[in-house]
Amino acid sequence: MKPIQVGLLGIGTVGGGTFSVLLRNREEISRRAGRAIVITTVADKDTARAKAITQGEATITDDAFSVVNDPAIDIVVELIGGTGVAKQLVMKAIENGKHVVTANKALLAHHGNEIFAAAHKKGVMVAFEAAVAGGVPIIKSLREGLAANRIEWIVGIINGTSNFILSKMRETGASFAQVLEQAKALGYAEADPTFDIEGIDAAHKLTLMSAIGFGIPMQFSAAYTEGISKLTREDIRFAEELGYRIKLLGITKRTAAGIELRVHPTLIPKERLIANVEGVMNAIVVKGDAVGQTMFYGAGAGAEPTGSAVIGDLIDVARTLTADPEHRVPHLAFQPDQLSDIALLPMDEVNTAYYLRLQVLDQPGVLADITRILADLGISIGAMVQKEPTEGETSVNIIMLTHQTLEKQVNQAIAKIEALAVVTGKVTRIRLEELDS
Amino acid sequence: MKPIQVGLLGIGTVGGGTFSVLLRNREEISRRAGRAIVITTVADKDTARAKAITQGEATITDDAFSVVNDPAIDIVVELIGGTGVAKQLVMKAIENGKHVVTANKALLAHHGNEIFAAAHKKGVMVAFEAAVAGGVPIIKSLREGLAANRIEWIVGIINGTSNFILSKMRETGASFAQVLEQAKALGYAEADPTFDIEGIDAAHKLTLMSAIGFGIPMQFSAAYTEGISKLTREDIRFAEELGYRIKLLGITKRTAAGIELRVHPTLIPKERLIANVEGVMNAIVVKGDAVGQTMFYGAGAGAEPTGSAVIGDLIDVARTLTADPEHRVPHLAFQPDQLSDIALLPMDEVNTAYYLRLQVLDQPGVLADITRILADLGISIGAMVQKEPTEGETSVNIIMLTHQTLEKQVNQAIAKIEALAVVTGKVTRIRLEELDS
Repeated sequence: MKPIQVGLLGIGTVGGGTFSVLLRNREEISRRAGRAIVITTVADKDTARAKAITQGEATITDDAFSVVNDPAIDIVVELIGGTGVAKQLVMKAIENGKHVVTANKALLAHHGNEIFAAAHKKGVMVAFEAAVAGGVPIIKSLREGLAANRIEWIVGIINGTSNFILSKMRETGASFAQVLEQAKALGYAEADPTFDIEGIDAAHKLTLMSAIGFGIPMQFSAAYTEGISKLTREDIRFAEELGYRIKLLGITKRTAAGIELRVHPTLIPKERLIANVEGVMNAIVVKGDAVGQTMFYGAGAGAEPTGSAVIGDLIDVARTLTADPEHRVPHLAFQPDQLSDIALLPMDEVNTAYYLRLQVLDQPGVLADITRILADLGISIGAMVQKEPTEGETSVNIIMLTHQTLEKQVNQAIAKIEALAVVTGKVTRIRLEELDS
Repeated sequence: MKPIQVGLLGIGTVGGGTFSVLLRNREEISRRAGRAIVITTVADKDTARAKAITQGEATITDDAFSVVNDPAIDIVVELIGGTGVAKQLVMKAIENGKHVVTANKALLAHHGNEIFAAAHKKGVMVAFEAAVAGGVPIIKSLREGLAANRIEWIVGIINGTSNFILSKMRETGASFAQVLEQAKALGYAEADPTFDIEGIDAAHKLTLMSAIGFGIPMQFSAAYTEGISKLTREDIRFAEELGYRIKLLGITKRTAAGIELRVHPTLIPKERLIANVEGVMNAIVVKGDAVGQTMFYGAGAGAEPTGSAVIGDLIDVARTLTADPEHRVPHLAFQPDQLSDIALLPMDEVNTAYYLRLQVLDQPGVLADITRILADLGISIGAMVQKEPTEGETSVNIIMLTHQTLEKQVNQAIAKIEALAVVTGKVTRIRLEELDS
């Protein structure tokens, strides 16, 4: 089947991430989508940058309108941003019968009603998963996964820059101004950070989620927006002492009087999961009448996480265009004739870390015997603690955390350790995962 | 347009939740789906129970085969469970050209390959969001939202019973046996809890996620399963002292040697978000090469959360059967002619709680003046703390947490408080949300 041909408008951070992920994962993506998806043309004013990133894998132009007017292009990906030329390009693409994928929350918050009406009239898709919370599939979850629910409220940490600043202020006790400078140096804040720190970017995203959750047109102009620039370290500390954490939240809520749509610094109880979302990460809590509270967490920005959402939308469009309706999304995500026969590993061959608890007699030389056994089997120890025997007990507990090793090595070691005369009872073995990469 | 007619097989806990949510939210659901979705027939051996729940809104039968053979039924929802008659009914429904929605993880983990092949041949959908993590839309997220990614690993707390037991053991220091009895009394554990506590239920769910994440057939027989029944309170405490929490995790990982698929108690660092998922809640962390780590959290069981997933699938099927492909899922989740015109509330009319920080001169009567102003405006105080002045300062900080009140009342109070002679500087006002319902 002919590949889906995509025209990419703008190859900055997100465009570059989209391009490279689509190229790197093209084999898996076509196994999932049912056909290849190829970015054939890239439009960017900086053609030198575009050439450097695409490495001859796409045609480069500095004329974005030539892409939206190209009859060979099936889907236009708009990653230029802003509400100026981006709007003209999206409207033109729709007029030309092309499907559109965009990450542009400002464009949709301001002009979404007009854009969606045009797309509906023309019978094309406009997909925008990447516009909210980067790689987190929150638009799909709200629009499809939770569609059974009467949504009661949506609360989100949806601006990574602000969350980074608040996390750092709390951790280090530094002032807003100090941490903002640090965020700029790390590339987490732009030279003009107004949109991020004053809650405007969050309000754009919240406007989209509110419309989807409650089935209302987008009304960005009625959103209430208050940023974090006036927060002091004292308030963060005082809140902490009272059991709360301060986060810049987007909150949209259905009440009897109407719908609330507001972005502002907010105290939330420390024990809530979302209070523990730190740094540039995003999280959205959705309260539905049937499902209760659900939370969606992940990287809210960045080249490849946002690229992940852009490509997810491309696959959605490709599946809709390609498959008969019944098989739009395959049961196991990949097309049935595209499943792999990679082996499932037997447990002996699994690599993980371990918590080992041994009960031993409190005698000299015990530890030497045990560590010798482990060393001979190539098992290295990350931490070791000895617990004194409690009253009435004669054996002490030794707890060890190992580094990663094969399960069969650990099982051999345990057998040898249990055979030692000084070891009483069975060794307790619990696996340990750092989950840090 | 003619309503989609659904036959429900089994009206126990999940069936009852599905029935009542579909009825309660029928108006919003048809605005989203583009047509009405109606459970016209319910099959259950206990016809008295079925009648009590359905209250005359559906035809009741004790013959499930009559439902799968009924030409009027478009979609069969299988909520009987197990791998016996449920399999015969699902296969018969497919043979009769009906779409199937099921929550039956055991059935799919054991016989999914055969069922999906039959459905593919017949051109019908088999949807199973409810089979994993209740109302959390993890199947859709893996299959669609994260489809751009090469999935590296999936790690989940996907059995609420086990997580409840481990949470309680850690909180109270009680033994496994003690907490298991408590879980039974609370209805969180069944009379025979083997499937839950020995990791078999989790392995069923993990088998499905592994297949979807990596594009492999389901191989439940090769899964490694180890439960929590041998965990001691000492190990939980020792792990805690070392900075770790013990969770029953399902782990599936792609390695160079093959795919790991294992369920066992696992130590994870306390600071990971998933380590803080407590009680009967579920959470799944997915690591994709582009998106990084994402987490999906929510109620993993229960009548209405699982019903939410069942109905989400029904809406998916309805949208696919109904809409032209371009409009399968409307831009704003609801059909374009079905948006509401509920007003967005001005900020003055918003009801929330507040953190107020006042700087006041340390004089008698100050607090009386302030609390009088608040009381007159109907604002009640939940907590109040006074901070002694730091060296060189003359004013003290008073911090108050209010209960819920209208923003305009608080703004009036602040204006009056700032007008007091004893109050120095501006009042700091930060909104507070409990997020507890």
